[in-house]
Amino acid sequence: MNRKMVLFTTGELLLLEAALLLLPTAVSVLYRESTTPYFLITVAIALCIGGAMCLLFRPQSRVIYAKEGFIITTLSWLSLSAIGALPFYLSGEIPSYTDAFFETVSGFTTTGASILANVEALSRSLLFWRSFTHWIGGMGVLVLMMAIIPPSEGSSGRSIHIMRAEMPGPVVGKLVPRVRETAKILYLIYIIMTLTQFILLALGGMPVFDSLLHAFGTAGTGGFGIKVDSFAGYSPYLQWITTVFMLLFGINFNIYYLLLVRSFRSALRSTELWCYLGITAVSVSLITVNILPLCTGIGDALRHAAFQVASIITTTGYATVDFDLWPQLSRAILFLLMFVGACAGSTGGGMKVSRLIILARSAKQSIYRMLHPRSVSVVRFEGKPVEHTTLDGLATYMTLYFLSIAIGFLILSLEPFDFETNLSAIVSCFNNIGPGLGAVGPSMNYAAYSQPAKLVLAAAMLFGRLEILPILIAISPSTWTKK
Amino acid sequence: MNRKMVLFTTGELLLLEAALLLLPTAVSVLYRESTTPYFLITVAIALCIGGAMCLLFRPQSRVIYAKEGFIITTLSWLSLSAIGALPFYLSGEIPSYTDAFFETVSGFTTTGASILANVEALSRSLLFWRSFTHWIGGMGVLVLMMAIIPPSEGSSGRSIHIMRAEMPGPVVGKLVPRVRETAKILYLIYIIMTLTQFILLALGGMPVFDSLLHAFGTAGTGGFGIKVDSFAGYSPYLQWITTVFMLLFGINFNIYYLLLVRSFRSALRSTELWCYLGITAVSVSLITVNILPLCTGIGDALRHAAFQVASIITTTGYATVDFDLWPQLSRAILFLLMFVGACAGSTGGGMKVSRLIILARSAKQSIYRMLHPRSVSVVRFEGKPVEHTTLDGLATYMTLYFLSIAIGFLILSLEPFDFETNLSAIVSCFNNIGPGLGAVGPSMNYAAYSQPAKLVLAAAMLFGRLEILPILIAISPSTWTKK
Repeated sequence: MNRKMVLFTTGELLLLEAALLLLPTAVSVLYRESTTPYFLITVAIALCIGGAMCLLFRPQSRVIYAKEGFIITTLSWLSLSAIGALPFYLSGEIPSYTDAFFETVSGFTTTGASILANVEALSRSLLFWRSFTHWIGGMGVLVLMMAIIPPSEGSSGRSIHIMRAEMPGPVVGKLVPRVRETAKILYLIYIIMTLTQFILLALGGMPVFDSLLHAFGTAGTGGFGIKVDSFAGYSPYLQWITTVFMLLFGINFNIYYLLLVRSFRSALRSTELWCYLGITAVSVSLITVNILPLCTGIGDALRHAAFQVASIITTTGYATVDFDLWPQLSRAILFLLMFVGACAGSTGGGMKVSRLIILARSAKQSIYRMLHPRSVSVVRFEGKPVEHTTLDGLATYMTLYFLSIAIGFLILSLEPFDFETNLSAIVSCFNNIGPGLGAVGPSMNYAAYSQPAKLVLAAAMLFGRLEILPILIAISPSTWTKK
Repeated sequence: MNRKMVLFTTGELLLLEAALLLLPTAVSVLYRESTTPYFLITVAIALCIGGAMCLLFRPQSRVIYAKEGFIITTLSWLSLSAIGALPFYLSGEIPSYTDAFFETVSGFTTTGASILANVEALSRSLLFWRSFTHWIGGMGVLVLMMAIIPPSEGSSGRSIHIMRAEMPGPVVGKLVPRVRETAKILYLIYIIMTLTQFILLALGGMPVFDSLLHAFGTAGTGGFGIKVDSFAGYSPYLQWITTVFMLLFGINFNIYYLLLVRSFRSALRSTELWCYLGITAVSVSLITVNILPLCTGIGDALRHAAFQVASIITTTGYATVDFDLWPQLSRAILFLLMFVGACAGSTGGGMKVSRLIILARSAKQSIYRMLHPRSVSVVRFEGKPVEHTTLDGLATYMTLYFLSIAIGFLILSLEPFDFETNLSAIVSCFNNIGPGLGAVGPSMNYAAYSQPAKLVLAAAMLFGRLEILPILIAISPSTWTKK
């Protein structure tokens, strides 16, 4: 294994984090908040550790393979969160480091689960950093690094392995032949969409600061609110804008690229897109009818249903109402949507709609083969045959997915909460949603869980965001023993 | 498709049911109960319908394929339950036919979920029939038919397809070259073990009638109790005997065959056996520690833990305590054990330990291949390489398994029960266990669910018992349209 390259890349990432931390530092200066020194200390720490790693571990060869890609991703996300938690902790605004770490992991993984009972008490610079982590984590911080750090010899070989490890979904492809150009295009689309939402929110009367932070949270499908009641206090216009943008950020970014290059026909031929919109439409309809008696009218019911469905299926986690108080059918639909998740290649989490489609088609084909043993057939997705290794990897992912959730659920069951709270907490954190049901419902928070439970939940968020395998390989002893 | 053969075999099965119904009829005569005429009417109906089907649909060719095997199994189990429900309904002891059907499906599928609030009010002959359905369904009624009906030309070809459709587990093999002999050996082992438990219970002071019915319920891993408090009122000796026999009936019957032919070494080399015992041991230990404060001592805690774990992992469903009142950790362990289930080739339900082992190994191998793309490796189970079609079928099964549970859960959520009750109800019925948590906990029953919900739960039991595919193929329109 190319250990030097692993540590070198992680070092580079910490330098990038130091640069990114300058933004909230500027916010703290702008609002003359007392948090400025804590941000500066954190920047210094990131610079020192990152710089030292880059100097000490300058690699002879930049060639890496899938294994290194997985380890770089795991190590990067862990160090990013460990250092990103410092401003919350040092400023004393989140007095426990575990809590600060939980909050930061929740930010970078775009979960949006919070331990803060009163988020409005947080200083503006920390609120900014908290929402900004969603934006960074949404498209992937290593993808960002690839887009901005100048390429060196052999680095495109490294890039695709890292990109595969960090980007969610069953198949990760490049939009254009060069990984670096792909990363740039993705971030360009991401920035344009975030800015559009920001402007539309601000035009609707939301304060500029709030608009920017909500756009960060929507873009990353994160869901950290900056009000105690999340989106409940905002106007129907602002809620509808956010509903639409949550859904837009849950769509595969390849489709936006196809639209950019004017391939409208291939963009609209995406099976995943139509399934995603179909699941959303059916869920919204069912919930609208189900919650009608609780609402002031059909428009009100439709708005709340659409917002909550968009928020859960895209794994964002904002709320306009306490859906924990909704009838069981609506709660059950939202619980099941937690598993579905958004499209592959979007900023959303969960299992991803494409996985479900491939699984369903593979099941259909396997039944067909059972009845017609001599027939030859292949599973197709988006017009292409699905490779056997992809199907294999999918089965592996599903096995590990349910196993991880089961183990997490068992550990959480040591806590003094009920069945529904613990189960929805682990499902929500693993799928990077945020709120769950019961004591972790949208009007509640995760503060009451014990420190070890918070670490388990933070681990679940990382496992979910990186789709299990990278971390599993990074922590497996056989990776670290020489053969 | 050979439609005549499908209907002919179903007819044969109804004739067998008529014969089996003579046993509870004899019980009703013995105890001079008023149920005798209702049993006789049911016998007459089964004879008429079964006889008519056999006469009308005498097939020219007895050759069938996998598809016919699936359809025969589905049709047989449905007709068996529809007619088996009549004595409960006609006698008026279960006034609603839907309830009677639910109870009978629950019996044949060895679920053990009941709609009876006071089971002790049932007449002895109906209690006998209710527990006897467990025994018939446990090893499989079509397997029984193969064992006793004399073979005719071409019937061994038919047998293996039916056996594969009815026997649970990822791979169904024959013990000896002839299917009929295999069926005979399986039933012989089944009868000997049932008798042994019956004698040991009777020797322990349980009334003879109760001993027989409990042996039926244990053998089929069914779980219909004949007391309102299930096993709580029986002595520790009787509880321990039942614990041991529940676990024994959850073991793959191939192992008993290997012991019978003195292949001790191959019997003890079974990975599935040791995993099954390992999961049981770990669960019992954790629960014993967890419930210690609620018990009178370590022996008491161990006995309750062992009984409940054995009851849930084998999908029997008896209870010595109301485990719904246990701490969350114990409840979570039992909930997860509901999915695990017993060994393949046993009378137990659930996913089966062998499926989990193959899934885990396949995941491990697929990770290995991802890191070493040029390596060649195969998944092995019980010393043999697992065929690719088996792995494929496994992924299909898992997809359909979770999809079915999700759909069932959604429909149940229309009922006025909480999240935990609905989720555990569908999981418990689908895995053929019986009791769930909350309002369907071991001290409760399923009576409060609406009629449509009871039909959904009955369908879940059948889907779970026949492992989804047979029913799915039988109800799929493409099966019935000519190409």
